[in-house]
Amino acid sequence: MSDTLDRLAEVLEARKGAAAETSYVASLYHKGLNKILEKVGEESVETILAAKDAAVSGDSSDLIYETADLWFHSMVMLAALGQHPRSVLAELERRFGLSGHAEKAARGQSDQ
Amino acid sequence: MSDTLDRLAEVLEARKGAAAETSYVASLYHKGLNKILEKVGEESVETILAAKDAAVSGDSSDLIYETADLWFHSMVMLAALGQHPRSVLAELERRFGLSGHAEKAARGQSDQ
Amino acid sequence: MSDTLDRLAEVLEARKGAAAETSYVASLYHKGLNKILEKVGEESVETILAAKDAAVSGDSSDLIYETADLWFHSMVMLAALGQHPRSVLAELERRFGLSGHAEKAARGQSDQ
Amino acid sequence: MSDTLDRLAEVLEARKGAAAETSYVASLYHKGLNKILEKVGEESVETILAAKDAAVSGDSSDLIYETADLWFHSMVMLAALGQHPRSVLAELERRFGLSGHAEKAARGQSDQ
Repeated sequence: MSDTLDRLAEVLEARKGAAAETSYVASLYHKGLNKILEKVGEESVETILAAKDAAVSGDSSDLIYETADLWFHSMVMLAALGQHPRSVLAELERRFGLSGHAEKAARGQSDQ
Repeated sequence: MSDTLDRLAEVLEARKGAAAETSYVASLYHKGLNKILEKVGEESVETILAAKDAAVSGDSSDLIYETADLWFHSMVMLAALGQHPRSVLAELERRFGLSGHAEKAARGQSDQ
Repeated sequence: MSDTLDRLAEVLEARKGAAAETSYVASLYHKGLNKILEKVGEESVETILAAKDAAVSGDSSDLIYETADLWFHSMVMLAALGQHPRSVLAELERRFGLSGHAEKAARGQSDQ
Repeated sequence: MSDTLDRLAEVLEARKGAAAETSYVASLYHKGLNKILEKVGEESVETILAAKDAAVSGDSSDLIYETADLWFHSMVMLAALGQHPRSVLAELERRFGLSGHAEKAARGQSDQ
């Protein structure tokens, strides 16, 4: 699972200079930040709807698909603003004490 | 960066049986799916606002913080519905051809 | 200003039986509740982005346009679920003491 | 139903100069635009969740309550940016030909 976000960040970075018609990501960069943020909003709502439906149907395939869309578009947002997902993961590690050594301690803490 | 989401998923799983007052995550599980989804929605809006502000100010610290909140709450949602972030990352890998061997090819593809 | 929402509710009601291709509203009914709710979510994000931009530019034309889209799609949602905007306005009147006679009192109250 | 939004707009205007602790609306103005927009986002998600639940349960009381919250906070947003709901209703009338005389025609049109 590990380096997926790292590799995806590389792909997003590599597509920055490209013409709008060469890829979906390139077209998003060209449309600008508002369009990218609209997609983040749309995908969060589609994720929420998929979660409600999964809770009734027991089928989570849409939920996984929509969550992937949400994370993907939030990574495009980070890239468009010159940020890397590693900073987000570092923030999560800081909160939960998730660095390798601290893992056991993390499970015992109660602040989150 | 690699195993952060894996370790966080373990923490979220470990807190499932706990009493509501022992941690924030446990309190979310007890409040139920709607409350968790409200948090996903709130954090997506706070992320969008932070992105707009970062584009003006050039300071991305709030953006990183809010994106961490968004990913964190979407992971609580996945855990509450018995799902693992590995499935989401597998979906991203599938779309972008990001398995280890396919990395180079991925950078050249244009379908996303 | 008064009866606009009432008349719009009539239009939305009248289009309920129609074939999907006869109007945008009819096509939304045919696509179903999730599609209508996705539009409510999308328009709320577009409204939020337009408000951020209006605060910087001083030009509120997009904000008015997007807020109209948000209210319109929330009225389609109400219609699809057999509800009337009058119930929403009655709830607002109840909270703020806005019935004709109570108007003066409303301006003095402090609970909202 | 007619003048509810007009009267609510007056209430929102009247509370503009007030100290934060005198009312909920005054406290929102003091917290600033981002806080108001976060509330618009939150209430849109709560409305969407209430709509999903209403479709299953047949009970629409939460849906009405949350839609009132959504419209209310979008009116606070308009007031904070110096705008009036009349402009939003005028935009809806323009789209649907809802001025008094045009009502009949509106029901027959198919562009929305």
